[in-house]
Amino acid sequence: MEAGGARSGSAAYTKGSGDDDGSLKPVPPCCVKAKAGVPESEAKCHDTVVKQAKYNTSTTQCGQSATYGNVLVLDGIVQLTDKDECAYQEMVTHLPLCSIPSPQNVLVVGGGDGGVLREIARHASVENIHICEIDQLVIDVCRDFFPNLYVGFKDPRVRLHVGDAVDFLKEAAEGKYDAIIVDSSDPIGPAQVLVEKPFIQTIARALRPGGVLCNLAESMWLHTHLIQDMLSICRQTFKGAVHYVWTSVPTYPSGTIGFLLCAKEGPSVNFLTPVNPIEKLEGATKGGRELRFYNSEMHRAAFVLPTFVRRELESYNTSAEEEKPKESVAEPQKMKILPNNAILMAS
Amino acid sequence: MEAGGARSGSAAYTKGSGDDDGSLKPVPPCCVKAKAGVPESEAKCHDTVVKQAKYNTSTTQCGQSATYGNVLVLDGIVQLTDKDECAYQEMVTHLPLCSIPSPQNVLVVGGGDGGVLREIARHASVENIHICEIDQLVIDVCRDFFPNLYVGFKDPRVRLHVGDAVDFLKEAAEGKYDAIIVDSSDPIGPAQVLVEKPFIQTIARALRPGGVLCNLAESMWLHTHLIQDMLSICRQTFKGAVHYVWTSVPTYPSGTIGFLLCAKEGPSVNFLTPVNPIEKLEGATKGGRELRFYNSEMHRAAFVLPTFVRRELESYNTSAEEEKPKESVAEPQKMKILPNNAILMAS
Repeated sequence: MEAGGARSGSAAYTKGSGDDDGSLKPVPPCCVKAKAGVPESEAKCHDTVVKQAKYNTSTTQCGQSATYGNVLVLDGIVQLTDKDECAYQEMVTHLPLCSIPSPQNVLVVGGGDGGVLREIARHASVENIHICEIDQLVIDVCRDFFPNLYVGFKDPRVRLHVGDAVDFLKEAAEGKYDAIIVDSSDPIGPAQVLVEKPFIQTIARALRPGGVLCNLAESMWLHTHLIQDMLSICRQTFKGAVHYVWTSVPTYPSGTIGFLLCAKEGPSVNFLTPVNPIEKLEGATKGGRELRFYNSEMHRAAFVLPTFVRRELESYNTSAEEEKPKESVAEPQKMKILPNNAILMAS
Repeated sequence: MEAGGARSGSAAYTKGSGDDDGSLKPVPPCCVKAKAGVPESEAKCHDTVVKQAKYNTSTTQCGQSATYGNVLVLDGIVQLTDKDECAYQEMVTHLPLCSIPSPQNVLVVGGGDGGVLREIARHASVENIHICEIDQLVIDVCRDFFPNLYVGFKDPRVRLHVGDAVDFLKEAAEGKYDAIIVDSSDPIGPAQVLVEKPFIQTIARALRPGGVLCNLAESMWLHTHLIQDMLSICRQTFKGAVHYVWTSVPTYPSGTIGFLLCAKEGPSVNFLTPVNPIEKLEGATKGGRELRFYNSEMHRAAFVLPTFVRRELESYNTSAEEEKPKESVAEPQKMKILPNNAILMAS
């Protein structure tokens, strides 16, 4: 990019809005902040955003960001903010649930903030929403400071189990769940087991044939080697389609987050074409709770990978036979188009 | 997200990679950095990345980020980094140039780093690449520290004019250019005029009928009011299709950047379906310069907007009649699907 306006330093006025009368008006605060790249660093720096000493422990802090609203920070890592939680919660939930017909039994591993529960509740077909969260403190913090997420716990279909997900899943009946959503954190430390083969196998066992897993899978800009490891494990465990998908979440590292979508052998799952589109779900937005981020087109677009990511994950991604494109404008001999993306070439 | 691994604090070892032998291996540095959300803040904080005092003026600094490589910082704003410049340069260039047949005359406003020139040069049909950059210092800095961008100036089709783009365009012959790419900075201060009606009208005058403009258009997460203003001006000026599109650029505010694609009245332009797909361009990757980010599916996906952005821009976006979808799984009465996105519903 060229310097241009960046040179204006403290310029805080701009002309604007369609006419050319040349009148000056104050630059909106968000622009002044954005100009200095402040918003995410402010949200990420819990020293500046901490407001509630009550939760100001070594691990859990809450605060407010001028741009992103309330922020939940764990050991200096932004877990969620009011402004952009919609992107994470809606995508991690509806990518799997809209890919299978009439999900009835859903398990959330982690997700103690309640946001994923809130999103699952949009699906009227769901009869049981089980959640296994290891950390009661996260639940307490969100009850007090993130009412728009905690509301998820108020659905009568929700059953909360506070404890270790590995133990919980070992005791779960085989084939019990239609979908399992792993809403955990970076695969380092305690959450590390959640991306390892034994746990992935335990999840597969708890899914019904054709059941689906959505697992957090890091950033395509920063962690392709970890994503390769996770894809490799999932491909060994799941015989249905396995895909890496991504979306935009400004306050996460690189401003993006990825997910792994996996289908257990059984009734075929075509993740790319939602069999259960959110726009057709009766009551999905009842009570005025409109979707803020997800829609069926964002669902499809999540599968489209930048060329460098395609190259790095090409040998790891799989896709079901029926996901091959009907047509493509691409030239395989010049740039290979992955079948799991190529449906977007259809028009 | 749930706490889980975030609690591991300084944990710097992880198990891994497909087998379950339980052996520990060091956590890759990028993960330790990502764990603390360091990469973008490091890249954004020029105090920590400045290495070259030669350019350590009040406005222009260069440095190195462990994660993002060389960084160009102007007044504390990251303009580009080695790691993610591909997303910006490839998208701002190929979104417009792949949307028209055989572009021959292209103008770049700004773009002194050379990256957009490098990308335009992939199009063999282009005969003249004109660039009007106001800031010689940016060119000098990139010559010394960003050879992979500066290489764009070495193409024999490039003609550099150092000066003010408003004056340059006023003197340009009417209908001279097939495409104009405005590679400027935030519309505050000197670059402010580049998003105002008089300049947009000057650009439209310099475009041939059916010619296209790609203009930088801020972040959908932070600046929808500015985007609305820009869309409003462009709709008044351009009678062809006008679209807001976006992509992922980690080191920009919110980790995303948007562009406005506008077509002048004349031969119809369907931005959504590249008439000139990059995968079919002879010599687009000659000399081993592979594309790193852009492909024809990323082109299409750039038009897909999150639901909240759709709502905020709905009355401003336009799309050509032929861009309406052949089919759609969406339910208009529940959530309006913009025609400029709906082509992605086809399958």
